[in-house]
Amino acid sequence: MIISWVTTIEPGSSTVLYGTSEDNLNHSAKGKLTQYTFYNYTSGYIHHCTIKKLKFDTKYYYAVGTKETMRKFWFRTPPKSGPDVPYTFGLIGIVKCARENLLLCSGDLGQSFDSNVTLAHYESNSKAQAVLFVGDLTYADNYPYNDNVRWDTWGRFVERNLAYQPWIWTAGNHDIDFAPELGETKPFKPYSQRYPTPYKASGSTAPYWYSIKRASAYIIVLASYSLHMYTWLRAEFAKVNRSETPWLIVLMHAPLYNSYYYHYMEGESMRVLYEPWFVKYKVDLVFAGHVHAYERTHRISNIAYNIVNGLCTPVRDQSAPVYITIGDGGNQGGLATNMSEPQPGYSAFREASFGHAILDIKNRTHAYYAWHRNQDGTAVAAESRWFTNRYWMPTDDSFDDPQ
Amino acid sequence: MIISWVTTIEPGSSTVLYGTSEDNLNHSAKGKLTQYTFYNYTSGYIHHCTIKKLKFDTKYYYAVGTKETMRKFWFRTPPKSGPDVPYTFGLIGIVKCARENLLLCSGDLGQSFDSNVTLAHYESNSKAQAVLFVGDLTYADNYPYNDNVRWDTWGRFVERNLAYQPWIWTAGNHDIDFAPELGETKPFKPYSQRYPTPYKASGSTAPYWYSIKRASAYIIVLASYSLHMYTWLRAEFAKVNRSETPWLIVLMHAPLYNSYYYHYMEGESMRVLYEPWFVKYKVDLVFAGHVHAYERTHRISNIAYNIVNGLCTPVRDQSAPVYITIGDGGNQGGLATNMSEPQPGYSAFREASFGHAILDIKNRTHAYYAWHRNQDGTAVAAESRWFTNRYWMPTDDSFDDPQ
Repeated sequence: MIISWVTTIEPGSSTVLYGTSEDNLNHSAKGKLTQYTFYNYTSGYIHHCTIKKLKFDTKYYYAVGTKETMRKFWFRTPPKSGPDVPYTFGLIGIVKCARENLLLCSGDLGQSFDSNVTLAHYESNSKAQAVLFVGDLTYADNYPYNDNVRWDTWGRFVERNLAYQPWIWTAGNHDIDFAPELGETKPFKPYSQRYPTPYKASGSTAPYWYSIKRASAYIIVLASYSLHMYTWLRAEFAKVNRSETPWLIVLMHAPLYNSYYYHYMEGESMRVLYEPWFVKYKVDLVFAGHVHAYERTHRISNIAYNIVNGLCTPVRDQSAPVYITIGDGGNQGGLATNMSEPQPGYSAFREASFGHAILDIKNRTHAYYAWHRNQDGTAVAAESRWFTNRYWMPTDDSFDDPQ
Repeated sequence: MIISWVTTIEPGSSTVLYGTSEDNLNHSAKGKLTQYTFYNYTSGYIHHCTIKKLKFDTKYYYAVGTKETMRKFWFRTPPKSGPDVPYTFGLIGIVKCARENLLLCSGDLGQSFDSNVTLAHYESNSKAQAVLFVGDLTYADNYPYNDNVRWDTWGRFVERNLAYQPWIWTAGNHDIDFAPELGETKPFKPYSQRYPTPYKASGSTAPYWYSIKRASAYIIVLASYSLHMYTWLRAEFAKVNRSETPWLIVLMHAPLYNSYYYHYMEGESMRVLYEPWFVKYKVDLVFAGHVHAYERTHRISNIAYNIVNGLCTPVRDQSAPVYITIGDGGNQGGLATNMSEPQPGYSAFREASFGHAILDIKNRTHAYYAWHRNQDGTAVAAESRWFTNRYWMPTDDSFDDPQ
């Protein structure tokens, strides 16, 4: 578990105290201190502390700071990996769930009213253990000089959730903060200083792409194309053991399939590179953000094209993933409402509403999925369905979708 | 002009003496010294010296080293830019040419017998002023521990030409030298240490993509995809003034159109990103290497695809460039001989022979182009044709090509 926090005025200690009893934090871990400047901004003292050798499926209490500045929080570790260990992925919002959840947070959260509703919705009754975040954290780059104060306020905004469960980060285009006109030419500087990822554990050479194994799921996080990521991903797919982690899930920021005009076809260059692997390795689900709306595809592939054969239309393919765009967590740009008409054959469901969803993995064969609008009550699903696992039960799970 | 050389035993001086008279090198420029290690290899002392404020179209003599180690060479500067200034681009090999030449060197030169023939062929009667090189210099990465001694021997191999005319570099995949198993995780380390490019002059943020304006040509050098290059290229295309430099030429390593099985479709992810710009900005010619063979396309584009319309076959397009693959300079992998059959409609000419070509720009409207096989005499062209400029005379220049 990586614990991160910021102190101002003075650095203080980078040590985290922790333990399984709230009143007896009898363990400690030493962290590190970092600080960065961005144009005319100087960050506070940023602490990162990695706690190792934790027990599975255990509630830990922890404290940062010293004396009168000490603050206490808690988190639960995930259960040990296994093919039938239940898991719930959430897409920002709330799911009533009788067991521990792993939540997939909607990307493009921003710091708007809608984000607040989404986050509040998510918190009000979730038992989730972790958030998978599909990119675009603060939108600081929309402010003069990429005002890095926004990174501080965003941290305070999400603390009420982030202090209690891990968020697994995907880098978005609004996290790049590449501003040569300000003399800031190191991409992802604020993002990488503030939100470290455990990328080395999966043999990755950069914090923007990595894998995480949790319970019955193997989660692969991708960034924009780089040759290193390409090489790494080819090896990574070959490593996945579906007998241990049946559910293979990919996260990226820009969707490969998106029928909104906004960002239409921006994922094409990654699609032609990676879609053949997604099908070959039977990825179950691909989650993306970027487009400020919601969309779910059928199980489709578009990998037969060879330049001269004219085969370039997506076709139903039971070895292919379902692609879900969940960029509707709330953001300043507002919703993307213009869709290509008619709805393309690959698109199963789309709606421009702020909302959240869940993916509740039951066992190696079945997962329940539902998408909830912010304007509805927590218990109301705007759409819901069952997915079957592509490795253990690669049957047609389109059910009531229009064919 | 950037002068680069390596000293061993001791560093010596990084100063270059130069002048327009062979016997009176009455100017000097101070250079810089660098050195690098790669696994168990330590480079010699690498000197780079940039000479500025040279006159156009002038022969300069220069010397590196001191006292008994001093060595003298010469180069010619290009003529001042203008729409009708003649230019000859060569693809390794020789062109008899009554005026100054700018040579496009075949990529994948390697250090083989075939390379030697190609280079000798090129030297024997060329009046060329500069080489445009489309990537893969030394193939050191094919040797144990990416044996960097190959970078030294390659430098000696090409000195007989490189000391007398500038080579404009494109980075190839064999130049990456990414070897985490050796603890070498900085891509392009030997390449970037040894072969600097003037990338900052065109506002680029990395040495692997940049532009050069020479005579009547604007040359854009691309690398594999990166978000920075994408942003830079979008701005760069808008900067090109066809009234000053009518000929817009793009260099990259992996071809966008290639009908050999070897590396088939590897350029797809870049094609979907950049081909629309190539057509919009009426690029005249795109040169690539990578595939160890020769191929020339018709003027074609494949940019109508929108996922759902089925329009994914290359069509004749008089706003589109001709794509030429010239990866046949000679290399250890040997020639790529397996082609997809039948020859696709986009491919105009292909042959698996080692060879070279020239592009001899006459004025703003016309350029003469010819490809020569190594096995033929220098004066024999295996194919030759006229290209007309896409900005000033965008007529159908396919002439005798099969339609």
